[in-house]
Parts: sequence; structure tokens; C-alpha cells
Amino acid sequence: MLNDMPKNEAAQTLDGWYSLHDFRTLDWAAWKMLSGDERDMVVREFSSLLEKWGAVEKAGNGSHALYSIVGQKADFMMMVLRPTMEELNEIENEFNKTRLAEFTLPAYSYVSVVELSNYLAGEGDPYENPHVRARLYPELPKASHVCFYPMDKRRQGNDNWYMLPMEDRKALMRSHGMIGRQYAGKVKQIISGSVGFDDYEWGVTLFADDVLQFKKLVYEMRFDEVSARYGEFGSFYVGNILREEKVQAFFHI
Amino acid sequence: MLNDMPKNEAAQTLDGWYSLHDFRTLDWAAWKMLSGDERDMVVREFSSLLEKWGAVEKAGNGSHALYSIVGQKADFMMMVLRPTMEELNEIENEFNKTRLAEFTLPAYSYVSVVELSNYLAGEGDPYENPHVRARLYPELPKASHVCFYPMDKRRQGNDNWYMLPMEDRKALMRSHGMIGRQYAGKVKQIISGSVGFDDYEWGVTLFADDVLQFKKLVYEMRFDEVSARYGEFGSFYVGNILREEKVQAFFHI
Amino acid sequence: MLNDMPKNEAAQTLDGWYSLHDFRTLDWAAWKMLSGDERDMVVREFSSLLEKWGAVEKAGNGSHALYSIVGQKADFMMMVLRPTMEELNEIENEFNKTRLAEFTLPAYSYVSVVELSNYLAGEGDPYENPHVRARLYPELPKASHVCFYPMDKRRQGNDNWYMLPMEDRKALMRSHGMIGRQYAGKVKQIISGSVGFDDYEWGVTLFADDVLQFKKLVYEMRFDEVSARYGEFGSFYVGNILREEKVQAFFHI
Amino acid sequence: MLNDMPKNEAAQTLDGWYSLHDFRTLDWAAWKMLSGDERDMVVREFSSLLEKWGAVEKAGNGSHALYSIVGQKADFMMMVLRPTMEELNEIENEFNKTRLAEFTLPAYSYVSVVELSNYLAGEGDPYENPHVRARLYPELPKASHVCFYPMDKRRQGNDNWYMLPMEDRKALMRSHGMIGRQYAGKVKQIISGSVGFDDYEWGVTLFADDVLQFKKLVYEMRFDEVSARYGEFGSFYVGNILREEKVQAFFHI
Amino acid sequence: MLNDMPKNEAAQTLDGWYSLHDFRTLDWAAWKMLSGDERDMVVREFSSLLEKWGAVEKAGNGSHALYSIVGQKADFMMMVLRPTMEELNEIENEFNKTRLAEFTLPAYSYVSVVELSNYLAGEGDPYENPHVRARLYPELPKASHVCFYPMDKRRQGNDNWYMLPMEDRKALMRSHGMIGRQYAGKVKQIISGSVGFDDYEWGVTLFADDVLQFKKLVYEMRFDEVSARYGEFGSFYVGNILREEKVQAFFHI
Repeated sequence: MLNDMPKNEAAQTLDGWYSLHDFRTLDWAAWKMLSGDERDMVVREFSSLLEKWGAVEKAGNGSHALYSIVGQKADFMMMVLRPTMEELNEIENEFNKTRLAEFTLPAYSYVSVVELSNYLAGEGDPYENPHVRARLYPELPKASHVCFYPMDKRRQGNDNWYMLPMEDRKALMRSHGMIGRQYAGKVKQIISGSVGFDDYEWGVTLFADDVLQFKKLVYEMRFDEVSARYGEFGSFYVGNILREEKVQAFFHI
Repeated sequence: MLNDMPKNEAAQTLDGWYSLHDFRTLDWAAWKMLSGDERDMVVREFSSLLEKWGAVEKAGNGSHALYSIVGQKADFMMMVLRPTMEELNEIENEFNKTRLAEFTLPAYSYVSVVELSNYLAGEGDPYENPHVRARLYPELPKASHVCFYPMDKRRQGNDNWYMLPMEDRKALMRSHGMIGRQYAGKVKQIISGSVGFDDYEWGVTLFADDVLQFKKLVYEMRFDEVSARYGEFGSFYVGNILREEKVQAFFHI
Repeated sequence: MLNDMPKNEAAQTLDGWYSLHDFRTLDWAAWKMLSGDERDMVVREFSSLLEKWGAVEKAGNGSHALYSIVGQKADFMMMVLRPTMEELNEIENEFNKTRLAEFTLPAYSYVSVVELSNYLAGEGDPYENPHVRARLYPELPKASHVCFYPMDKRRQGNDNWYMLPMEDRKALMRSHGMIGRQYAGKVKQIISGSVGFDDYEWGVTLFADDVLQFKKLVYEMRFDEVSARYGEFGSFYVGNILREEKVQAFFHI
Repeated sequence: MLNDMPKNEAAQTLDGWYSLHDFRTLDWAAWKMLSGDERDMVVREFSSLLEKWGAVEKAGNGSHALYSIVGQKADFMMMVLRPTMEELNEIENEFNKTRLAEFTLPAYSYVSVVELSNYLAGEGDPYENPHVRARLYPELPKASHVCFYPMDKRRQGNDNWYMLPMEDRKALMRSHGMIGRQYAGKVKQIISGSVGFDDYEWGVTLFADDVLQFKKLVYEMRFDEVSARYGEFGSFYVGNILREEKVQAFFHI
Repeated sequence: MLNDMPKNEAAQTLDGWYSLHDFRTLDWAAWKMLSGDERDMVVREFSSLLEKWGAVEKAGNGSHALYSIVGQKADFMMMVLRPTMEELNEIENEFNKTRLAEFTLPAYSYVSVVELSNYLAGEGDPYENPHVRARLYPELPKASHVCFYPMDKRRQGNDNWYMLPMEDRKALMRSHGMIGRQYAGKVKQIISGSVGFDDYEWGVTLFADDVLQFKKLVYEMRFDEVSARYGEFGSFYVGNILREEKVQAFFHI
């Protein structure tokens, strides 16, 4: 009987750029022991790394974002998108070899790949569709605020997402997507898949100019069955954009 | 069938000042290695930061509180309310750049926004209602004791708050609120929402002159169905007010 | 319907002295780097703190106990009872300012208040009853061994203590109390409530001259429905009394 | 009704020597900073501690074992059996006062007492039975490998060991014991009870000359209902014997 | 009745080489404080260790792999296969005694043994079967990417793998294996058993030249009942191969 059971249909995904969220805590005590000149030099080195990343972004070969994080979980987050996992690793190691890194402690990181799921799929070769491409290889917005959290779909007793028939999952995801659409223009959402890459199944990165919209969106979604019954959430990180011209002030003592 | 299922109605919230709870542990061994004069200087710098915050409070642009924490979880807590998330971040970074911060270790923090829910809503534009405004933009009381804990509403098997109809949630919250009202005059309660901002869904901050009232209130509520079936609680922090005139003694060796 | 549901009756408690369990690990490597004379001086300072606490105990204004802890969880535990939460905080800070504290690391702490519940209540004003007073304001026994653990009553699926009617809870607690009574003379038990004060709902401190009685008592209770279905236990700490005359040897290298 | 419910019969235990499992990580970087002569001196001091323990073992007043641990969880484990909890504490403190301890970090420890349960009991006074005594006061074998893990009996929903009638527990344990008996001569098993002493209810220490037998035994047992439905397991530690003549090489740089 | 219950049949395994996954974090700040010459010397010592391991591999007495890890969980992973647990321990200790180890911190490790289960068994003595031998004593591929995660089979309420009849488990595993087979040529999978050796029951190590195949494989499997209902997963680690010629660059500042 078990033998004849039809296998449950797996969701298909479209996969874009690889993504590294790299959260760091600054060791302020050690940082303050440097002279002002030394600190300037260290920040300049970091700024030139950012410029290099900026050039990659301009060339359409990746994107990145820099945000300060509110609360003790981290002081700042670098989010970097690149075409290969090797590049992410190189960037991470390049940062680790900067002088600034000597004054930071790892706080959290997340490895994933920008993802679109077929629950909402259209027709034709999606990788040729410019709308799809813009979502798989996005230029990260310069929004005032960021919100990041990893999540799983629950597999627990009667609330087992992965045992639901494809049709039901599709219907649930469609209704879920409706909520997201109401926030169009207010919140930009990037979903990245991390099955096989990191501890949760997805990373969710939200961008908004009004930070309150993160709370409104996530709270409204929590009443939706997809989140209410099937969502398992990791830690939430919220932050403010660290624009080029504010980097100096951020690190200045 | 799933398709036609009516979506569950989400609760609406009123949102006031952004809130940072910042718990710190003092590195007593390092602190004692300073000379008495150096320690005085460091405490004076911290006191002038507190004065600055006091001026903001007087101007009605925010509020703050300073409490020593009992037990090893932390030595003191700063709670700060401000109109924007950026200000919270600046205050946090400003503290990190003080000399006192060099002698503290991060113990815990919580990022949220003062919140009122519509479960208990009245009529008219609430943001114009002075009673509502007083609760969204509160001046923190100078009570002798504080109690802080974060919490979630449970989503587990048959005990799933977010799958309950709005009507049932309203009835449950009304009964829950009744308990709170019995403590009026004894315990002041500030609820802040943290969905999308931090790891739990709410932070609860209680103020009382009689510390035993925290226990009585929280214990009585635990028998109420809202907590009994649907409450998930994080760590509890309890503390004593650190009034301006006691700051010196607290840090004095 | 939900509206008309009778609220579940909360248990009432009698509350006595506030309690701090303070577990510390000794940094043996740093401790050994002191000269023998310095170590003697540090231990003498600690001994005079203990004497001060002894005077408070004699005056009936509190009580304390000092035990070495077996295993790596901690090296020793100070348990202190006082009439106010402020005094606990002062004692903790006073210890942190001693020289000995420089050689210790925080291992665990617990904040609670000595508690009697009304499940087992008699008649009359209990706070006037000398038997009750002796249990709310106890002098801690000088027993050879201590056992401490924090615990919750479970709220999970069908095993939800806080949803049980008062009558059932009373019956269950009475049967549970029977087991405890069989250990009268062998194990002295102090229950302290920590709802609103610390992460679990109760702290249990057991004292016995025969350490095996801890195991017998806790194991026998585990088969009782109150523990079997409704008990959630934290970490267990077991220790040996550090009498005044053994303090020297304990710290001696 | 609840009142008249017959109390569930608790299991009785026989209790032998107290047991301390003490896992340590070596701080190799600090260790290497010593000169070869200093390291020799430190190892000699440790060896003489082992000799002292050896004399106690010969006198039948206790037993001990020393194993290196595979993987990062620890570098070596000392397991010590003694008649009293005080002796365990003294041995632990004596080790902490050695010079070797300055180069170790605590990794994990377990406090328990060698235990036999009455599920498998025979007749007569068991403490007079030489077979029983040999199991309660065992000389630890010099087997090539050790495996240690702590465990609980589950109390969860319908899988609640402590709510099962004694008769059912006995039958289940008998069947469970059958599996163990098949490994007689291959694996020696010491069960120690830790209810009231440490965070799990039992510690299991296995000794074997063929390390693969640990996996075979534990895996086979996992399909047995006692483990399958009622077992909750902590961390597993596996190691190789550090015989006297290999101690030098282990610590040699 | 319980007495007469037929015992559930345990799965049989074939066991090959013992396996150590050793994840390390580089202390970049300390590493940078060395002079370039010193760093070269340290890396040369590490390279000669790798050469020694290479010679063992050539002789067919083991195998190893070296990968850099993406994200903050670790900087690099060494995976080593050997015929005995003692050799794993020696290799680990030999690495700990290198100079490079002084600049690394333990990040995670996993102890297991390469395993084939009888759910998929053929006929004849499997240990004589060259196909089986190639899987029990594998030469690790030089694939561009690695993915490692530990896992358990769930034992929870109605989702209890170990209570399923052998026949059902076999059918489920066969269907599960089908998915794996679709990835033949794209993903090489090594299963190692860790029951009795480490905290999970299995370690899964995947090798692929296209890193996206890890995500596709693991995600597709998650919809299969074996994973959907019965899989419990630990942390996921993903990395890029550190070929001999890239070791220099990796460590170069």
C-alpha cells in the first residue's frame, strides 16, 4: 500500500544570484583604542571595498547593501549578491582580511540564493522573461530600512506543509501573495532559498522607507494560514541604511 | 475549497514611539582597575548622557528609564522611547561610544514600538484621542521596580491563536484585559509590538512600586485562557530604579 | 459562548522573603596567579562579608547558605534571603565589588520569593500563624547537601495545568504533597515563586544530610501525575555545604 | 474522582558509588607556549594524581577511567567513582588546582550515582548479593573505547513513561534488557541515575574493545519501544582509552 | 499483552571507514599579526600534513577533503576517513599540535562511520562486493562544492520512524532512494552513521560541481514522506573546494 502511494509533487524554483547576509558586531572598546588617524585609515580601506562592490553593481554583475542594525544582535549588516558561491566566499574572505574586520565579531550570517517558486508561475521560459530576471538578479534598493529573517515551513503533526498536495499549497501561497501585493510600493521583498545551504529553508529580506510597514506586513501575514499554521520563524533583524556619506559618522568616535 | 476559505481577519494596531530595551552587564573586574578619579569621570560622562535624554523627555520628544537588574542576567537596563528607529540606533551608538560602554558587555536587547491593539478599540480617530496619545507616547513612570519580558501568541496544534476567529480573540482579550484593570494604580503596563523587529511578537514592560504585584499580576493572568493556552514567554527581567542620586553609589567601588 | 465561559480560578499565594540563588565559577588559573598572601587577604574579605550576613541572620532579618557545587556547572552557590528586592540587589552588587568576585564568573542565578500556595491552605490569617511564618521567613538549615532546580507547570496540548479546574489542581497537589511528607526529617524543601521575576515559575531548593534522599524524593515524585504530566524541569544543581571552617581549604592552593 | 485515582507505583533503585564524568578541552595554544620541561613537569603532576586514584581503586574504595575524546566536544574525559558526593567534589577541586587544569577548559560534566532498577529485580537483600555489589561498586574496565550519553524517559502527550503502569514498564524494560544481553562480552554498560543530581535522568556509559559495537547496540535498541517511544537522548561522546603509557604522547608537542 | 508484542525489526548496516568532519574558524586578527614569513612557514607545515594525508589516500588506507565554508559558521572544513577511530583521534590531535591550529577556533565537528543500510540490500556477502566496497571505503571526490548536514529520523507522536514496521520503512526508503538516483552524476552522496558516536543519527555529505544541485536535491527530498514526516535536520554547511594550489591564496594576507 505504502508502495503505491503517489509521490507528493515538489515545488520547482527559479534561482538567481547567490546571497550572503553578513552581520557583524563592532568591538567598540578595541576600536576606540586606535588613534583617530588609524581609524580613518581603516574606514578608508573599508570604503574602497564598498566602491569596488559598487563597480560590480554598476556592471550588473551583482549587488550589495549596507545597513546598521538596531539592538545588540549586530552593529551592521552587509548583504551581497553574486552569480557564484565562490564569489561570496571570496568577498567574505576579502572582508576578513581588511583591518576593519579585526575590530568586528561575527554576529550572524546567512547563505542562500535568490528564488522564485512555481506556485505563482506563468508561461514561457521564465529565465528569458525580463520581469523574472529583474527579480532573480535584483539591484538592491536604497531604502531607508531593512528587515531580515529566516524561516521554515512547518512539518509538525497535522501541520505539515510538505505533506500537503501541490494544489493546496498553490492555493495557500496565492492567498498569501495577495497580502504581499497590498504592500507593493511600500515594501520590497526578496525571497532567497537556503535549503541545503543554511539552517532555515528561506531567508526573507524586506526593504522599506517606512519601518512600520515591516510590522504591518509581517503581522498581517501571520493571520494568514500559510504563516499561522505553517510558518516557523528565526531571529528578526531590523536596520537603518548606512549610506556612503554616513559611514564616516557611524565609525567616528 | 481551500480557495474559497475566508481569510482570517488580522488585528489592527495603533503604533506610537519606537522602543529600545538595552540590558548591560558591567565588567566589574575591569571597572575596578580604573582609579577612583577615572571612574568618576566615566560616570560623569554617562550622567551627562542621561541629562541629555532628560531634556528630550521634558520636551515631550521621547522618554527613558534606568533600572538596575537583579541576578546575573544583567547589571542595568536602559529603556528608551523615541519617534523614529533612527534615533534609537543613534542613542545606542552614542552609548557605545561612551567610556562607560567599554566596561559593559551586551546582555540582551529588545526592539519594538509602543502598541495598542484594536481588540479593545473605541470610536473616532484614535490618534487624536488624548487618552490614546498618552498611551502611545508615554512618559515612563519613576516606579520603584520594573519587569520586562517578551512573548508570543502560540501557534501549536489545537492551540493556534492566529487561526482563531477575530470574534473569539476579541472576547478572550477582553477577559484578559479585565485582570489587568484590577491592577490599575498598582501596576503600569506598556505593551510594545515587535513583529518584524525582534524575535518575539511583543515586549511587556511593567512598572510598580510594590515588586510583588508583578508576580501577582502575571500569575493571575497565567490562569486566563489567553496566557494558559496561547502565551509563550521569553526571559523575565526584574529590577530596581536607579535614580539619578543613586547612580554614583551603584558604580562606586 | 467564549464570552460566558467562567474564568478559571487562580491559585493564591503567601509570599515571604525574596531570594537570590547566585552560582559562581572560580577562575582557578587567575586565582593561582595570586600570591598565597593575596589569596588569604581576598578570602578574609569574603569571610567578613559572610560574617555580616551571619549577623543579619541572627537578627532574624534574613538568611543565607553557602555550598560548593559538584560538576562543571558552578564552583559554589550563595543563596540569600531578604525582606526586599532592593537588599538582594545590594548584596549582589556588594559581592561584585569584592576582590573575590574578580576571580569568579557568573554561572547561573535565580530570583524568586519564598512562597506557600493556597492549594494546601488552612484557616485564619496565615501571616499571623507562626508555622506559616517559619516557612515564609525560614532560617536556612545547615544541612550537608543542597539541591536546586527551577520548574514550570506544563501548558501543552492536553497537559495544560493552567486550564485544569481549581478542584482538580488541589486534589493533585494534595497527593503530591503526601510524597513530600514521607521525606519529613530527611529533606527540607523551600519553594520560591518566580513568576514575573525569572524564567521559570518556581525554584525548588532541597536540603538534606543524606544526598541520596534528593534522588529518591525527586524520582518518586516524577511518577506522580503532577510531575509526570505537568512538570517541566530546568537544570539541577547539587552541592556540599561549605562551612565557615572549610572556606579556607576550598580556596587554598 | 481525581482524588480516588490510585497513585502510580514508582520504580525502586539500588544505588552504588557516586559518579563524576568530567570532560575537558585542552587549550593547545597556551599549552604549546610552555617549554618542553615545563610541560613534562605538568604532566608528571597529573600522572601522580592518576597514581593516587589508582591506589584508591586497588583498595576497592572507588574506580576511575581516562579516555581521549574524538571530535571537538572535548579532548579527554575523566570518569571517577567514589562512595560519597564529597569525595567527587574534592577530586574535582584537586584537579582544578593542578597546573594541567590551567590549560584546560570545562567542556561538559555529569553527576550521578551508579544505579540498578527494580524492574529487573531478584529476591533477597540485594546489597548483600555479590553480583549486585559488583555492579553497584564496579571496577571500570580498561576497554579500548568508551561511549557516554545522558538520557531521559519521555513525558510527552501519549508517550509518557511515568504515566505507564508499573507492569507495562517492567515488561518493556525486560524486552529492552534482552537486547543488552545479546551484547554481553562485547559491551559493558554502566547505568547511573541522576534525577535530582543533573539535567537528565540517567547517564549511560558503555565500554567496548570494538567501537562499532556501540553503534550496533544503541541503534538496535532505538527500534525497541522503550527507546523508540520513550527515549530522549542528550549528547553522545565517544573516545579511546588513554593508558598510562600513552598519556605522555597525548600531551607531547 | 505488552509482553507478547513482537519486537520491531532493527535495520542492519554495513559499516566502512570512520569519519571525522572537523570545521574550524580562523582567528584572522591573530593570523594577521604574524609576519608574512611566519605565515608562510605555518602554511607550509599544514601543507605537509595534507601531503601526508595524500599519501595515505594513494595507498588506499583512507581519504580526505578540504573545503572553505561560506558564511560565519566556519572558515574551512577538513573531512577525514580512516579505518579506525584511533586514527581519527590521532589526526585531530596532530592537527591541534600544528602551528596553524593556534590560529583556529573549533567551530563544529562530527564523528561517524560510512554506512550502507539493508533497506536497499542485495544478495551475497556485501563486504566482498566491489561496488559495496567502493561505497564503504570511498575516495572522496574532488568536486567543486560540498554540503554537510546531520540528521535524525523523527520519533514524535504519530510520526515515529522507529515504530514503523520494517516493510514500511523499506518501501519509504526505496521511494526516497529514487530521488537520489535522479541526481546520479550530479551529486555524490556519502551517508555516515553516528548513532552512539555523535548527537544526530546520520551525517550526510554531498559533493557536486554545480552547487545549486544541493538545493534541488534536498528540496525535492523534503516533499518525500521520509523527510517530510520523519526527517529532523541539524545545521547545514556549504563550501567550495580548497585545492592544493589555492591553499596559499586562502591564507595569504
